[in-house]
Amino acid sequence: MHPLRAYIQRFVPLTEAEWAPLAAALRPVHLARHAHFVAAGQRRAELGLVLSGALRLYYPRPNGEERTTYFFFENHLLADYPSCLTGQPSQLSIQALADCELVVFDYAVLRRLYDELPVYERFGRLVAEYHLLGTDARLVEQLLLSPEERYRQLLRSGKTKILERIPQHLVANYLGITPVSLSRIRARVAAESGSIS
Amino acid sequence: MHPLRAYIQRFVPLTEAEWAPLAAALRPVHLARHAHFVAAGQRRAELGLVLSGALRLYYPRPNGEERTTYFFFENHLLADYPSCLTGQPSQLSIQALADCELVVFDYAVLRRLYDELPVYERFGRLVAEYHLLGTDARLVEQLLLSPEERYRQLLRSGKTKILERIPQHLVANYLGITPVSLSRIRARVAAESGSIS
Repeated sequence: MHPLRAYIQRFVPLTEAEWAPLAAALRPVHLARHAHFVAAGQRRAELGLVLSGALRLYYPRPNGEERTTYFFFENHLLADYPSCLTGQPSQLSIQALADCELVVFDYAVLRRLYDELPVYERFGRLVAEYHLLGTDARLVEQLLLSPEERYRQLLRSGKTKILERIPQHLVANYLGITPVSLSRIRARVAAESGSIS
Repeated sequence: MHPLRAYIQRFVPLTEAEWAPLAAALRPVHLARHAHFVAAGQRRAELGLVLSGALRLYYPRPNGEERTTYFFFENHLLADYPSCLTGQPSQLSIQALADCELVVFDYAVLRRLYDELPVYERFGRLVAEYHLLGTDARLVEQLLLSPEERYRQLLRSGKTKILERIPQHLVANYLGITPVSLSRIRARVAAESGSIS
């Protein structure tokens, strides 16, 4: 089964006839390491499924700092979703952290399918709800947890790919701390685990 | 027109026949000042439209602090939306800041309408997208802006009801600062406006 069809079928069942018009709209995209899928200030009204590689979503600040809020790996759907929805250029950037293979399609195709096939309208609702829960969880983390608590939550969350495959300085950036602070927190947490086992 | 029907029709057109099953499920709810629509740790699988009054959404912290993230006024739809979607008790609380009149309905009714009437499925998608954009904007504000920038953004945002109707200590809590810091920022911004005009 095509990985995008498998992704959609996590949300809704899809017949061959329902899958066909989306399948016909797909294009392969290669992104070299460090290349951007979309950069802040631009607009890219496309969605992409990651077939291989890893990417990060981040917000550049006027002072040159960046805040990373999300990592994408195989079988993640990525998009500049706010920009797709509003039609406005985005504040966010999505950058390849390794050579990436994606399969992409126009947001306009999905919008047309919302009108034509009820199963896509449902998929659109469920995907929006799924992203809403993820964004809400990030906001709550940011408002309520200290950096150390955010790190412990990351350990518990099962997002092991972030810890295994993302460079430490970007994990620190995701947690909103310096790499030095992250090293200290890791040492503290590791020492606790040692004393328990 | 019923205010809830008017709210829904901001997103989708609704015939009399489509409105009728939801209209039949509505219940009036009165909340006294300081009462909770839902409190953290509980679950309330209902949506409510505010007819009069004002409420705030906040997250209590284990240390007794609170972080306010949203205010609701007339014709706002409120819910413990993450909890409706996941079925889990929520981390958030929604509290009346004045005596409030609401009209509420079960989330289960809306879910049933998603199955029965395509127009509600579309409404569900559009409402989820709308909330996603709002939550995303709050996250971006929190990650990228200083408290003073957040205050200036609030001034520019057209959310004038927050500044007009919400007590200063809760506006400060919403911005993530102390009431004293808010007074200083307000004084600074007012002085600038004065020197411009």
